[in-house]
Amino acid sequence: MQQMIYIEDLKAWQKEFAFSIDIPIRFSETDMFGHVNNTSAFIYFEEARIEFMKHKGLFTQIKDPETVPVVADIQCDYHEPIYFGEIIKLYVKANSVGNSSMDLHYMALKENGNLCLTGRGRMVNVDPQTGKPQEITEDVKQKLLENN
Amino acid sequence: MQQMIYIEDLKAWQKEFAFSIDIPIRFSETDMFGHVNNTSAFIYFEEARIEFMKHKGLFTQIKDPETVPVVADIQCDYHEPIYFGEIIKLYVKANSVGNSSMDLHYMALKENGNLCLTGRGRMVNVDPQTGKPQEITEDVKQKLLENN
Amino acid sequence: MQQMIYIEDLKAWQKEFAFSIDIPIRFSETDMFGHVNNTSAFIYFEEARIEFMKHKGLFTQIKDPETVPVVADIQCDYHEPIYFGEIIKLYVKANSVGNSSMDLHYMALKENGNLCLTGRGRMVNVDPQTGKPQEITEDVKQKLLENN
Amino acid sequence: MQQMIYIEDLKAWQKEFAFSIDIPIRFSETDMFGHVNNTSAFIYFEEARIEFMKHKGLFTQIKDPETVPVVADIQCDYHEPIYFGEIIKLYVKANSVGNSSMDLHYMALKENGNLCLTGRGRMVNVDPQTGKPQEITEDVKQKLLENN
Repeated sequence: MQQMIYIEDLKAWQKEFAFSIDIPIRFSETDMFGHVNNTSAFIYFEEARIEFMKHKGLFTQIKDPETVPVVADIQCDYHEPIYFGEIIKLYVKANSVGNSSMDLHYMALKENGNLCLTGRGRMVNVDPQTGKPQEITEDVKQKLLENN
Repeated sequence: MQQMIYIEDLKAWQKEFAFSIDIPIRFSETDMFGHVNNTSAFIYFEEARIEFMKHKGLFTQIKDPETVPVVADIQCDYHEPIYFGEIIKLYVKANSVGNSSMDLHYMALKENGNLCLTGRGRMVNVDPQTGKPQEITEDVKQKLLENN
Repeated sequence: MQQMIYIEDLKAWQKEFAFSIDIPIRFSETDMFGHVNNTSAFIYFEEARIEFMKHKGLFTQIKDPETVPVVADIQCDYHEPIYFGEIIKLYVKANSVGNSSMDLHYMALKENGNLCLTGRGRMVNVDPQTGKPQEITEDVKQKLLENN
Repeated sequence: MQQMIYIEDLKAWQKEFAFSIDIPIRFSETDMFGHVNNTSAFIYFEEARIEFMKHKGLFTQIKDPETVPVVADIQCDYHEPIYFGEIIKLYVKANSVGNSSMDLHYMALKENGNLCLTGRGRMVNVDPQTGKPQEITEDVKQKLLENN
């Protein structure tokens, strides 16, 4: 496995995840190579990230929210092909939280425990009207960083 | 080929199409069966339908439009598998236009002229605020039915 | 509600469904109109259809299967907009089974019981090597039509 | 703009791109925030990457190819929201080519010249039967690195 810049010590990094959701692979997410297309990983990341934020009590006001989390950058490393019929467990954690942005990390395991995806991405908290970054309150920051 | 309820005479039906766009098939639109996944046909229909309406001078005001066309129902018949690397020609015509809705028909041909997709669907003209149907003006109706 | 050609009596039709799966709506499945894009309905149909077939003991051999079910035609009626954050219950039943094809029907309900999607589509059982239709055995036919 | 680790000098980096394709934004690629969903960027990258490789004379044998390029990792930075109706110009270049893998870089510009997406990702050349990395020949390496 290639060294990923966002992981210093894989074992330690893996232990810091507490939240996960199960994602059953859809047939339409495969491609003609026979396994999941690379673009689907980011759909899984988005689904897991939103569930993670709801679990933390964030992003719950869907209509006319004061602030929304917008993806500033995102990346994924593909460790093993994923096949239709599999269910992956997708973990999310807040690796760090700044004034108006946070760095989320992702890890997907197969049912046999094999690592299939890792990733990270920065979300910025913005005002949906102006697009301007908005401060993440101390309260929210703490919730995000709590290890559960 | 199976008889499709929305086509009385295939030859005559095909001749009524005048507008088309080219759609290059994307790799991510294939699935593990090796050809385009059935769900992608509706992405192609949507892309062609929007270009058709723009060509007719409709749906041009993207921000805060007075009315928007919403899909009420849609259907597709798959006549031949479509493969990555192919470019299909997707035709659209307004088959009929009512007070607040229109029936659009679709036909896709391969580069060799083979018929690969046919379809139809009803669009309703609605007020985006209230969701209520809005009248299609006589002027718009005529533009939609002009055979070009 | 418009009369749909594949439903004679809505109440009776609804009662014939026994199998369903829950589908949580993904953020990426919405569009700029604020609700689920029409193309996503067919992704949901496909996911539910495959689970239905697995439940019936079909389509279980994913690698090198003898026959595969291919979509010959499919259609959807949109009764209510679906929003991000909702979970829909998607029902599937085999409405009829022929020599090499079957007509599947679909119904989606919201958590409040409102009907949001109905649809149907014909699947053909084909040999993945030749693309030729393959007979559906009497045994499979009976399993498909059992109301559970 | 945030400093991206894969770009040392933005001006110099931009000048190294020679190949591009136009990508019209599809309606279904937007989400309820009103602009293109983050996951669509990777569909655009894939489409542009494949055209880039075809332009270089690679990946042309679609059926039973000897080797296929598989995504090992990929990342994207989002600089400006992209809207339905826009056409972006997506540039691709081979930043470096190793024994069996290559590092591709991506840049998307709007019609007004504004930078909206940048990214990079490593492709590995693999044998589709075994999944094992295959050497990239010196000939191919040179074609990839030619600045056109």
